[in-house]
Amino acid sequence: MAHGSRLVDLVHARIEGFLAERTSILRSISPDLEPLDAFSKRFLSGGKRFRALFCYWGWDAVAGRGFDPFEAEGGRDRFPVVSAAAALEVFHAAALVHDDIIDNSDTRRGAPSAHRLFEGLHAESGWAGSSADFGRASAILLGDLLLGWSDELLDEGLEPLPDRQAARAARAEFVRMRAEVTAGQYLDILEERAWVVQSDEEQRTRAERVIVYKAAKYSVESPLAIGGTIAGATTAQLDALRGFGLPLGIAYQLRDDLLGVYGDTELTGKPSGDDLREGKRTMLIAIARERLALGQRRLLDELLGDPELDAGQVSMLQRTISDCGAVDEIERLIADNVARATAVLAEAPFSQDARAELGALAKAVTRRSS
Amino acid sequence: MAHGSRLVDLVHARIEGFLAERTSILRSISPDLEPLDAFSKRFLSGGKRFRALFCYWGWDAVAGRGFDPFEAEGGRDRFPVVSAAAALEVFHAAALVHDDIIDNSDTRRGAPSAHRLFEGLHAESGWAGSSADFGRASAILLGDLLLGWSDELLDEGLEPLPDRQAARAARAEFVRMRAEVTAGQYLDILEERAWVVQSDEEQRTRAERVIVYKAAKYSVESPLAIGGTIAGATTAQLDALRGFGLPLGIAYQLRDDLLGVYGDTELTGKPSGDDLREGKRTMLIAIARERLALGQRRLLDELLGDPELDAGQVSMLQRTISDCGAVDEIERLIADNVARATAVLAEAPFSQDARAELGALAKAVTRRSS
Repeated sequence: MAHGSRLVDLVHARIEGFLAERTSILRSISPDLEPLDAFSKRFLSGGKRFRALFCYWGWDAVAGRGFDPFEAEGGRDRFPVVSAAAALEVFHAAALVHDDIIDNSDTRRGAPSAHRLFEGLHAESGWAGSSADFGRASAILLGDLLLGWSDELLDEGLEPLPDRQAARAARAEFVRMRAEVTAGQYLDILEERAWVVQSDEEQRTRAERVIVYKAAKYSVESPLAIGGTIAGATTAQLDALRGFGLPLGIAYQLRDDLLGVYGDTELTGKPSGDDLREGKRTMLIAIARERLALGQRRLLDELLGDPELDAGQVSMLQRTISDCGAVDEIERLIADNVARATAVLAEAPFSQDARAELGALAKAVTRRSS
Repeated sequence: MAHGSRLVDLVHARIEGFLAERTSILRSISPDLEPLDAFSKRFLSGGKRFRALFCYWGWDAVAGRGFDPFEAEGGRDRFPVVSAAAALEVFHAAALVHDDIIDNSDTRRGAPSAHRLFEGLHAESGWAGSSADFGRASAILLGDLLLGWSDELLDEGLEPLPDRQAARAARAEFVRMRAEVTAGQYLDILEERAWVVQSDEEQRTRAERVIVYKAAKYSVESPLAIGGTIAGATTAQLDALRGFGLPLGIAYQLRDDLLGVYGDTELTGKPSGDDLREGKRTMLIAIARERLALGQRRLLDELLGDPELDAGQVSMLQRTISDCGAVDEIERLIADNVARATAVLAEAPFSQDARAELGALAKAVTRRSS
């Protein structure tokens, strides 16, 4: 990821330019829309931009152009892929805004979540009614606005692409990703509640399905494929991008699941053990439940999802899950999936530069601590 | 609207065909997604389809093709406009699903709203956690899914359009409408809360702004313009469509505001006086507040937005608003706006058929009782 930060700057500049145009439209309607504008910028200013990076290097894997950080605006021929990468980030911001309402999360990246920001605005403005209701309602609308914008940004990028077949394929990949991640999120919130009436034998399969649709395809495979299709990838190239992306995406999410239970608050920006309080039924939990004796499993089931868990209960659960060997098994699964991704990469018909960058990205997303 | 019901059938068939394809994708992911599928169909099976009709006759105003109900599937050259009309209905379903969460509405068209349907599913399935939380979370995701689908449906329709300039213009109109209605909805929920700290002099202007963006452009002007651009409208034609659509849209919403306070539950499918309990700050309320003496205005402000209003309080408020002359003033505004729209229509460079149909639609949307 030698060029990672310059590329991130490029995507960021594209997002900022786009937002500036869109928010001037909002302001022409009413100055009262300023919070939609301010909070959009705020939610789009940070993040790791992994999706944008995968999209760019998926493009370069096929286009073989490398990345010249001194070329103005990344070069004219990069406009479509940089816009698509930016669109993925705007879509992701929309998903997070809605996700935080769904999960009732107070924070995002260490700062207040969108509905809490609107809630605060209501409280400090002395408006009538419930601040919490206004916060939630406004954040639903902010997410809707960002969803629409992500789509406009993608279209702006694909418009000047001379290869119309490639533009259509990239758009098809984007809309498939959009539907799949929404379906994956529904399966995720369903699993948190429906596990009580489902058979224990199926729990791992169900957790895997959530990983594949909510995370692996969304965060890695689809961004790579969108980038690749923009460059006019052959079937072999697209297969290689997917063959690399899916196992890497699974490893990425398994690392996320570990961080959700064992992550350092300072680094993740989330309270320690957050996933335990939320009751997320991840692969880690599915594997722990397979390994635990009945008594311990019942205790886990009883405590998991209790928003009031104290620090002592959290660390007890952390130990229980770790002592039964579930953490080691997840680490093995991460290693296996990374190995599978790396093997595909080694044989992939990609540019040299992209192969190196994708290898570095694979390490970054699966060894991270935040 | 001689062809109204056949046209509605055509749009409905397009929606059904599209949903059948999309839900087969959902089922290939997991049978657990069935409720997303079932509730989508349910929310897309009804409604007055005014937006679809305006879109079609906006197209015909320019294309001058009329409507032959016996032509199979409405004819090949109608595929783009019928798809766009269907896309407007799918977008509207998405907006309603989110709107009902925002307004905390239990019903929609006399049946349970989406979040209440998911809430019921949770309760009857014996799943863990809060049914209300699951209902809200799932409905947010259902709305997101429908938003994405509306966009796909529009694209499918515009793809085969030979006039690429027209396709781009239609898409630009659609995305502008999408952002404007979201902004309008935010201004609406803001006004319900922020009126307490704002000057009384501005209340009418603020209510007008909500009407223009949340309703008039969204429900009438934009559908007409989208239809017109698909047919390759000249600037004069597009100006006429807008000049007719905007005042008609204002009249449409003013009628809606009256129905929200005085509508018959049997016909509207909503509890009588629903807007009073919700505390909507409509033009009707703004005008009543201008006309009422201080004591009565204070009483109105106190009761408006109280979800517990009983039937006696509702009918007292209905009388107060009517006795001060606000209802008569709204009726005059409706008549003025309809007259303005009709005058534009009389001079408009449209096909004969479209002129007749648009005139009939103008009557239907401003004289309706549901």
